[in-house]
Amino acid sequence: MKTKLGPQRILFPLPTVLVVTGTMENANIATIAWISILSGKPPTLGISVGTKGFTGEQILKNKEFSVNIATAEIMKETDFCGITSGRDIDKFEKTGLVKMPASEIQAPIIQQCPINLECKLIESKIVGTTNHFVGEILETHIDTDKIKDANNWGSIDMKDFNPLVYISGAKEYRVLGNKIGDAYKIGNDLK
Amino acid sequence: MKTKLGPQRILFPLPTVLVVTGTMENANIATIAWISILSGKPPTLGISVGTKGFTGEQILKNKEFSVNIATAEIMKETDFCGITSGRDIDKFEKTGLVKMPASEIQAPIIQQCPINLECKLIESKIVGTTNHFVGEILETHIDTDKIKDANNWGSIDMKDFNPLVYISGAKEYRVLGNKIGDAYKIGNDLK
Repeated sequence: MKTKLGPQRILFPLPTVLVVTGTMENANIATIAWISILSGKPPTLGISVGTKGFTGEQILKNKEFSVNIATAEIMKETDFCGITSGRDIDKFEKTGLVKMPASEIQAPIIQQCPINLECKLIESKIVGTTNHFVGEILETHIDTDKIKDANNWGSIDMKDFNPLVYISGAKEYRVLGNKIGDAYKIGNDLK
Repeated sequence: MKTKLGPQRILFPLPTVLVVTGTMENANIATIAWISILSGKPPTLGISVGTKGFTGEQILKNKEFSVNIATAEIMKETDFCGITSGRDIDKFEKTGLVKMPASEIQAPIIQQCPINLECKLIESKIVGTTNHFVGEILETHIDTDKIKDANNWGSIDMKDFNPLVYISGAKEYRVLGNKIGDAYKIGNDLK
């Protein structure tokens, strides 16, 4: 039995990323769960950012941003960056998150995040109350101690990562649970 | 210490959804993790679908699709739908997934998925090797036994759901882990 809820934006679980805009001297952090990969060739992602916020303004101005995957260890810092505005405070200073220079863009990356993606804005489009920013991924960084094979990032071991999982609606942060199957493989049982 | 990997499309964890196209008589299922909410007002989402696949062709033809959140219970069926093409087989028949009529669109929803979103195509745009389809959510369905308050879907209890989590790169399916904090709240500790 199903019940209708009307049009609702329900989707879970979601990744939690910290989007950094600005420069090494003057950078801001926004917490975003409305993100997805758009294409593999070239590596491209999309983020949705409120049309009235500081991050959207910065992205339109600088045409670049970094995407940093948040972990459970920085849950409080991540949540803080989602409930405050960079117009009012320096979020790096307030949280203790550490800036590192990126290589292809002016916006820094975040040291405490194990994966960092440098993005160049290639398109933006207003959808409802957000701006959908399409970014081409120009460079990717990973914590050196978490690499297995630098030529195959798919060789990462998820036990070395502790990504923060966001559940919209229920407004919860969770950790990842156990592995239950191999993708592109387990479905062969039904062939 | 960070190491550069070059431009890579790394993002995890990801939701796993089944996208249904076609009609009650002739429907197809595609497995998609490249999805995100684009806006809350109106409720809108985006999915990225290979430009050469059957699902993209169907969406361009019918201008609608349903998005159904996959669970760990249907992991094998979900993976199967990701490694096969609807040009060759009837995935509903092969998997035992059950079609239910939607209310606003011709494409059915999937009974075994606890949340179902009916979407009308409002835009499509090619990004690299995929088509980014923007869908306005016209109706949402939830398993009746999982509703707490039909006027507030945020009142759902995640212990009633068992969403399938996809880890790209490592190509793993996982379950959700424990709750570790309240979003929009825990960050106040740093204020």
